[in-house]
Amino acid sequence: MDFLDEPFPDVGTYEDFHTIDWLREKSRDTDRHRKITSKSKESIWELIKSLLDAWSGWVVMLLIGLLSGTLAGVIDLAVDWMTDLKEGVCLSAFWYSHEQCCWTSNETTFDDRDKCPQWQKWAELMTGHAEGAGAYVLNYFLYVLWALLFSFLAVSLVRVFAPYACGSGIPEIKTILSGFIIRGYLGKWTLLIKTVTLVLAVSSGLSLGKEGPLVHVACCCGNLFCSLFSKYSKNEGKRREVLSAAAAAGVSVAFGAPIGGVLFSLEEVSYYFPLKTLWRSFFAALVAAFTLRSINPFGNSRLVLFYVEYHTPWYMAELVPFILLGVFGGLWGTKTTQLGKYPVLEVIAVTGITAVLAYPNPYTRRSTSELISELFNDCGALESSQLCDYINNPNMSRPVDDIPDRPAGPGVYNALWQLALALIFKIVITIFTFGMKIPSGLFIPSMAVGAIAGRIVGIAVEQMAYHHHDWIIFKNWCRPGADCVTPGLYAMVGAAACLGGVTRMTVSLVVIMFELTGGLEYIVPLMAAAVTSKWVADAFGKEGIYESHIQLNGYPYLDVRDEFTHRTLATDVMRPRRNDPPLAVLTQDSTTVEDVETLIKDTDYNGFPVVVSRESERLIGFVQRRDLTLAIKNARQKQDGVVSSSVVYFTEDAPQLPASNPQPLKLRRILNLSPFTVTDHTPMETVVDIFRKLGLRQCLVTRSGRLLGIITKKDVLRHMAQMMNQDPESIMFN
Amino acid sequence: MDFLDEPFPDVGTYEDFHTIDWLREKSRDTDRHRKITSKSKESIWELIKSLLDAWSGWVVMLLIGLLSGTLAGVIDLAVDWMTDLKEGVCLSAFWYSHEQCCWTSNETTFDDRDKCPQWQKWAELMTGHAEGAGAYVLNYFLYVLWALLFSFLAVSLVRVFAPYACGSGIPEIKTILSGFIIRGYLGKWTLLIKTVTLVLAVSSGLSLGKEGPLVHVACCCGNLFCSLFSKYSKNEGKRREVLSAAAAAGVSVAFGAPIGGVLFSLEEVSYYFPLKTLWRSFFAALVAAFTLRSINPFGNSRLVLFYVEYHTPWYMAELVPFILLGVFGGLWGTKTTQLGKYPVLEVIAVTGITAVLAYPNPYTRRSTSELISELFNDCGALESSQLCDYINNPNMSRPVDDIPDRPAGPGVYNALWQLALALIFKIVITIFTFGMKIPSGLFIPSMAVGAIAGRIVGIAVEQMAYHHHDWIIFKNWCRPGADCVTPGLYAMVGAAACLGGVTRMTVSLVVIMFELTGGLEYIVPLMAAAVTSKWVADAFGKEGIYESHIQLNGYPYLDVRDEFTHRTLATDVMRPRRNDPPLAVLTQDSTTVEDVETLIKDTDYNGFPVVVSRESERLIGFVQRRDLTLAIKNARQKQDGVVSSSVVYFTEDAPQLPASNPQPLKLRRILNLSPFTVTDHTPMETVVDIFRKLGLRQCLVTRSGRLLGIITKKDVLRHMAQMMNQDPESIMFN
Repeated sequence: MDFLDEPFPDVGTYEDFHTIDWLREKSRDTDRHRKITSKSKESIWELIKSLLDAWSGWVVMLLIGLLSGTLAGVIDLAVDWMTDLKEGVCLSAFWYSHEQCCWTSNETTFDDRDKCPQWQKWAELMTGHAEGAGAYVLNYFLYVLWALLFSFLAVSLVRVFAPYACGSGIPEIKTILSGFIIRGYLGKWTLLIKTVTLVLAVSSGLSLGKEGPLVHVACCCGNLFCSLFSKYSKNEGKRREVLSAAAAAGVSVAFGAPIGGVLFSLEEVSYYFPLKTLWRSFFAALVAAFTLRSINPFGNSRLVLFYVEYHTPWYMAELVPFILLGVFGGLWGTKTTQLGKYPVLEVIAVTGITAVLAYPNPYTRRSTSELISELFNDCGALESSQLCDYINNPNMSRPVDDIPDRPAGPGVYNALWQLALALIFKIVITIFTFGMKIPSGLFIPSMAVGAIAGRIVGIAVEQMAYHHHDWIIFKNWCRPGADCVTPGLYAMVGAAACLGGVTRMTVSLVVIMFELTGGLEYIVPLMAAAVTSKWVADAFGKEGIYESHIQLNGYPYLDVRDEFTHRTLATDVMRPRRNDPPLAVLTQDSTTVEDVETLIKDTDYNGFPVVVSRESERLIGFVQRRDLTLAIKNARQKQDGVVSSSVVYFTEDAPQLPASNPQPLKLRRILNLSPFTVTDHTPMETVVDIFRKLGLRQCLVTRSGRLLGIITKKDVLRHMAQMMNQDPESIMFN
Repeated sequence: MDFLDEPFPDVGTYEDFHTIDWLREKSRDTDRHRKITSKSKESIWELIKSLLDAWSGWVVMLLIGLLSGTLAGVIDLAVDWMTDLKEGVCLSAFWYSHEQCCWTSNETTFDDRDKCPQWQKWAELMTGHAEGAGAYVLNYFLYVLWALLFSFLAVSLVRVFAPYACGSGIPEIKTILSGFIIRGYLGKWTLLIKTVTLVLAVSSGLSLGKEGPLVHVACCCGNLFCSLFSKYSKNEGKRREVLSAAAAAGVSVAFGAPIGGVLFSLEEVSYYFPLKTLWRSFFAALVAAFTLRSINPFGNSRLVLFYVEYHTPWYMAELVPFILLGVFGGLWGTKTTQLGKYPVLEVIAVTGITAVLAYPNPYTRRSTSELISELFNDCGALESSQLCDYINNPNMSRPVDDIPDRPAGPGVYNALWQLALALIFKIVITIFTFGMKIPSGLFIPSMAVGAIAGRIVGIAVEQMAYHHHDWIIFKNWCRPGADCVTPGLYAMVGAAACLGGVTRMTVSLVVIMFELTGGLEYIVPLMAAAVTSKWVADAFGKEGIYESHIQLNGYPYLDVRDEFTHRTLATDVMRPRRNDPPLAVLTQDSTTVEDVETLIKDTDYNGFPVVVSRESERLIGFVQRRDLTLAIKNARQKQDGVVSSSVVYFTEDAPQLPASNPQPLKLRRILNLSPFTVTDHTPMETVVDIFRKLGLRQCLVTRSGRLLGIITKKDVLRHMAQMMNQDPESIMFN
């Protein structure tokens, strides 16, 4: 009896913090598919089941889109409400945010939409006085208190219930998508805690964004729905296809940018991205975006987050300041990050400092997305913001849309100072905030830094052009009386530059910015800034924020973009090295169960090659450590006569042994008969390429048909680190 | 002396109609890069050279963008002029098109921009009579005559000078990008002739588009600029990276859609698309689009081809007609194509029939893009076209933009008949046109068919909604007096559906349509139609137009999207088969020059495995037939003492032979020491995956270290064809 004809549980699964074998997963899925197809011809019921199976991919996408869109909407609404709660409360219904409160009020006038009697600041509510120094101090104090409460709750929840919920999660998702197992990282518990603490962290006013974490939330949704279908839950490769699409849906709801989301997933996050996934990702991203829109958290039914409409084109000469903004963005992208040691204390301290410093400055007190939105905006004739306080020429009567260039008024100069302070504050505080043990994204803070810098530069250029029409650089494109510089565009370019410097995105960045703002005309300035910032950032610090985070954690991530150009061969990388003990192998018909058990106990290799005999060194297959352990344990429990001295056979047929001999253990079923081999002369660049493209865990090295050694993913990564003069010991997992 | 230390010409190149080895090309590029990097430390000059080398990729992209944008602009202008030449001539300057002629004229009134005294129809010019039956017949006759002249010129030029210039070129470009060599297909001569004949073919009024051929033109530009840099001209792999980007630039200028172009190249055309190429493609596509815009052939400075602005949203119930249009598009996509036998005669006949039938119907007489543009357009209050002849209610005074639903006037009913006739005509004539031996694309004719069908459906739904407000389906979304149905949107959806049915594009289709029309709001209707049309088309005919064209020509194209799900193993596919003669191998140190020459003469294999000895069958490497031939020829000419009885050594050191023996020939240098091997038990799905992802030409099959056989790309493709019950002999090249 060969008990192995019946599969036993857990064979073919992976341990935590290990790398999956993509080829094996793919092959298993093909097997499954083949079975369903052949069964489907048997009965109508099987046919329906096979059709359901074929459609399950689309169903999962639909569910992901719906849930992640809903969650994003809920998060937006909750953040709005809780951010306003720091300042006051709505008397008519305490669950209304400031805007909703005054929007539902009949007593609001058009001029002052922000003020209505139903909305009361805390000081007014508690003391009855809305104005005065006392009220200001009380409001200030309560603002800081609420902020501390929110962030304390956030960090405590993360610490106690779901340590994986901290950070943006994108580096880990990249690693998982490349084929690594981190159990619980995308679990239900993480989903719940991350959603709640994200709201708390953003509402606390810390300098962090919800966009990155939303990608993590969407991926958790994807993982959740995978468990509904065995096609995805039982195949780590197929599961990752779904997760890639979920990441696209996450970016789609974060920015209202479905196309940009798909490109982001393709360019930045995903590892294997089959074309079929492209189409499905797009579907998931669209469903998510439309679900979010139907919840309508921004109060306008636009799909875009920061809708802008500029009235003037840009000019070639403006490329100079745009490229300068690109340089600034690149420098911003080189800032380092570190992991905190005293999580709770750190969060409390940074929240306190942030709240205390942020309150007095109107540009830091409001939420970061509102700030970005205002900075992007063009100053129309009706705009009442401080940034639009230009001195109009009362003698000129022109149509409303056509605004001539104007000198800046005192409001603009005032705003410039406040913006400069806000810039310094944001730069410093963001560096301290990122890396803390709460959900935090870097997209929005980076964009804010860039937008502030851009707006300052924009106003400077504009005023220079106004006061010096005769300068050669302005002469050609900036006649007196013409509106030639749009400071809002500079803010947009600056935001793109900083975002690009941090993430090193390229095409997806431009597409996201373009979807975010709805402006197709400004694609060239955006590209110029994005290219510059990427080059500058690459020249200074070699990696983007995600890659450096992955390295910091020692995950085995084989980056598709790293070029391997050294002249080493497979023989230089393979183990055993020159002075090592010989390679641990099994023979096909002369190893006993005890030998195998000793080998498993003495080594920590993930698998063992099987050879014909130790003399010939002819390779016949490869067996996984985990499968071997499970098979022997199973056989010892269930199969009679298997004892320590039983011989393990990997051959097709075990010989008929006399009854006195112990029962043989036939293990051909768990033997991988098509292990991947390369010759010892294969250049390492080819080996790296093969590991990348085929997603291997290990590869055997042969010379003229003889087995020489083995190369694992960890060996490859360590060799690459060594070649780049980094510490090879930093790669910790296999 | 080992003469092989110095490379001899042509080693490592490929023969025409053969497949390249991607791994070898990549490895050669890494070598080159390594050399340049190490040299760059020697002197300033070498450093500059290395920087230039690093930048050459961007320079090539810039040049491609500039040239393909310019060519597209020139083609647009020439087509405009020559299309109008069929009807008349501009007296003030004969090189002006109708529009330019009247635009420069002062006597044009706003109401009748098409009429000006400078522009005269042929009858008016020749006889002095502009009106009357005689003038009509004369104009008709000359229209047909010009069309015949243009198409005759086109087909003759293609036949005589550049046979590769016919068709759209996209199937061949797909094949080339997958690693096939077709010399001259992207040559200068093809570029020149294709550009000229494309203008002629489009101007002749045949039912074909210039969009597909523009991709071919852009790829020719790419190939042209590759020859400027040895980095690209000497490496077939790197060259294909440039060509992928050029294809993106081609679509970008064809539709004014840079993002769609990149996605099209990624999804539809390219095979290996490294992320670095994504960014560069985007750059090339943008440069091309902006070059085209600065030439401004459409007379408006918009980037988009068919700009539309709809004033009403769409409603869920409308998804039903949209999906029906999707079904129509899918059916359109299943039409077959064939290659013509009598090229010249066929072209003349079809042109004649097209011109005779097209002239009387205003919707077929005009150029197809103008037709599509009119069909897409919403009927504003000021629109004077026949399609917008609605009966306005004179009692209602409303703002211009807000048009209530109206009954159709006689003009609309008239237009409906003409459109129905035009639809039948276009369907029939397009099927006959495609496959003719002139440059011809299928994008625009397909879009026209879909747009006509869509507009007809749109008007039908609109009038139904007007006359039956009380029907349940209309009750909820179409109150009397509200403008609820936009027929132009139906035309757009129909166009997308037909385009999707023919090409089976998905994401890129939606993005192109969205960039083409500038409408982000209508992404859901577009997607619904695109998905439906793809499913219907896939259900009927398995392949898109490009794939079936590739198959018709027998090119070795390993489609990334075909799933291989059969249960065969490498051993079932490899050669030699059971009853074949044994595998032709070379031994490392016992084959003579004569033996090798006999082997080369007697077989037509592309390469030979080299083994230690025939008995042990231990593999040590693989040698290319072409390299072997060249090396022996070279050695016989240049190396003294190499005669037929000389022994060929593939070992590291040849033994010291007595002087009486003939000189040995050392050929280790041309031996590939890292040939790709799989075991005989490897499932074919894994083998197919490896061939696809690594771009192999061949792969050796071993069993426990012994060489058993070989699998080439042709073997894989033939096996796949056999498994799908197709004729395996249809794959002709290797």
